[in-house]
Amino acid sequence: METKPIDGKAFAAGLRARIAEEVAGLKASAGLTPGLAVVLVGEDPASQVYVRNKAAQTAEAGMASFEYKLAADTPEADVLALVAKLNADPAVHGILVQLPLPAQIDANKVIAAIDPAKDVDGFHVVNAGRLAVGLDALVPCTPLGCIMLLKHHLGSLSGLKAVVVGRSNIVGKPAAQLLLKEDCTVTIAHSRTRDLPAECRTADILVAAVGRPEMVRGDWIKPGATVIDVGINRVPKDDGKTRLVGDVAYAEAQGIAGLITPVPGGVGPMTIACLLQNTLTAAKRQKGLA
Amino acid sequence: METKPIDGKAFAAGLRARIAEEVAGLKASAGLTPGLAVVLVGEDPASQVYVRNKAAQTAEAGMASFEYKLAADTPEADVLALVAKLNADPAVHGILVQLPLPAQIDANKVIAAIDPAKDVDGFHVVNAGRLAVGLDALVPCTPLGCIMLLKHHLGSLSGLKAVVVGRSNIVGKPAAQLLLKEDCTVTIAHSRTRDLPAECRTADILVAAVGRPEMVRGDWIKPGATVIDVGINRVPKDDGKTRLVGDVAYAEAQGIAGLITPVPGGVGPMTIACLLQNTLTAAKRQKGLA
Repeated sequence: METKPIDGKAFAAGLRARIAEEVAGLKASAGLTPGLAVVLVGEDPASQVYVRNKAAQTAEAGMASFEYKLAADTPEADVLALVAKLNADPAVHGILVQLPLPAQIDANKVIAAIDPAKDVDGFHVVNAGRLAVGLDALVPCTPLGCIMLLKHHLGSLSGLKAVVVGRSNIVGKPAAQLLLKEDCTVTIAHSRTRDLPAECRTADILVAAVGRPEMVRGDWIKPGATVIDVGINRVPKDDGKTRLVGDVAYAEAQGIAGLITPVPGGVGPMTIACLLQNTLTAAKRQKGLA
Repeated sequence: METKPIDGKAFAAGLRARIAEEVAGLKASAGLTPGLAVVLVGEDPASQVYVRNKAAQTAEAGMASFEYKLAADTPEADVLALVAKLNADPAVHGILVQLPLPAQIDANKVIAAIDPAKDVDGFHVVNAGRLAVGLDALVPCTPLGCIMLLKHHLGSLSGLKAVVVGRSNIVGKPAAQLLLKEDCTVTIAHSRTRDLPAECRTADILVAAVGRPEMVRGDWIKPGATVIDVGINRVPKDDGKTRLVGDVAYAEAQGIAGLITPVPGGVGPMTIACLLQNTLTAAKRQKGLA
């Protein structure tokens, strides 16, 4: 069997173009410019890169981008005050507080302070609850991107067996909810699962979201399955440099999987594109346009 | 293999006794009498029976019981006003609005109006979200009862394969969340599942919550599995009367299942006992005692 890669980079570029088009339309028809505020506390290098990319892509989509960079020793109360200000600001439709936060700040408290209508990360309990009970929700970006790729490549997911490996609040659990909403039969597997390879081999759709380099081996994959690899792990190379690998042994999956997302270039680029999608959705809902 | 019935009636009676003891202690030590308000709109006969049983068991546990019976044509605004009054009443720690509600009343709106801290049915999106992300939540009573029975009979559930058939917000989905929290590998199956018998046969713990009389057949059960039958279906008998059956063909399960909840007398009695448990939990949390 020939294994085809899923080009998340190209799909994300197309999605961003469609978002930019809709944003241009909203500006013209409703005078609405969706706005995304990103709050970064401290100087974590990876976070700085993410925030820079988010701001650049927000601006490219024609949205307003508001960046707040706070010192690493900013007290929790100041972050909460900023969130309250952004909640009240009508030009801001989406608020993202970049995680992780420094130790003096309780991330749960900050997330709980964000207006659920502006919670474009989809981490607020109200959004988790709305997703769980089947109401319109702002859904975490990475699993939302996974589902978009799956629907684009497979069409209807109804009746397919999906196995999600990993049960984080950010990826595994919301991915399972979304797959269930698409009428998949869904299994959530994790570190306590007794025979993980056997569970994985039942999957028509296998979502790996564990953060362990190449943990899912080729013989864990059912022939013809669609594999969504959410992992982004940096591992050393022989020359002393590093390279990125997923949670799936990509080379081993060749000839077994039907479709697979590469790392990088698979799920990764979808995350920011879905953040823009969520910001657009949030703006439209706040204006009564969706 | 001998199949043992799980005596939910006896377990529920023991749970109610433990709750009554704790209530007596709270009265003595903290002057706190947990209070449950039940709102019934209209005269649905089954709802009347439930509400009567809830009130009686609440009083038996030493808690304060407040009953509100409203006419079937009560406007939505009046129900919302009553909920607001109960939210503000410090003697009321739990609020339950009996479903179904008459057509002029939007149940989602009423549930959303209940203070999540007093939402002892666990239906509010904030409680669904708190359960989903792993925070302390008020959990729907029936799945909570299922988990209690499982833990009582099996001890640790870690690593066991659980299959939940049915994905309602009231039973299936929260049951899956609770089983995941207990470190089960969890599959959610439903009407679109392709080979439901085969999925069920993988289960160490099989939870049937579909509302279809005896749908789960004996040969869907893995030998030795624990079967939790949430269904309560009334079916006609030859003599023109009716009898209650579950979602599982109980007679066929004999000699195959290791443990099984009968209908009636299995999961059913746990629901009200867990409502009392939730009311106790809510009261303690509201007083900062839990």
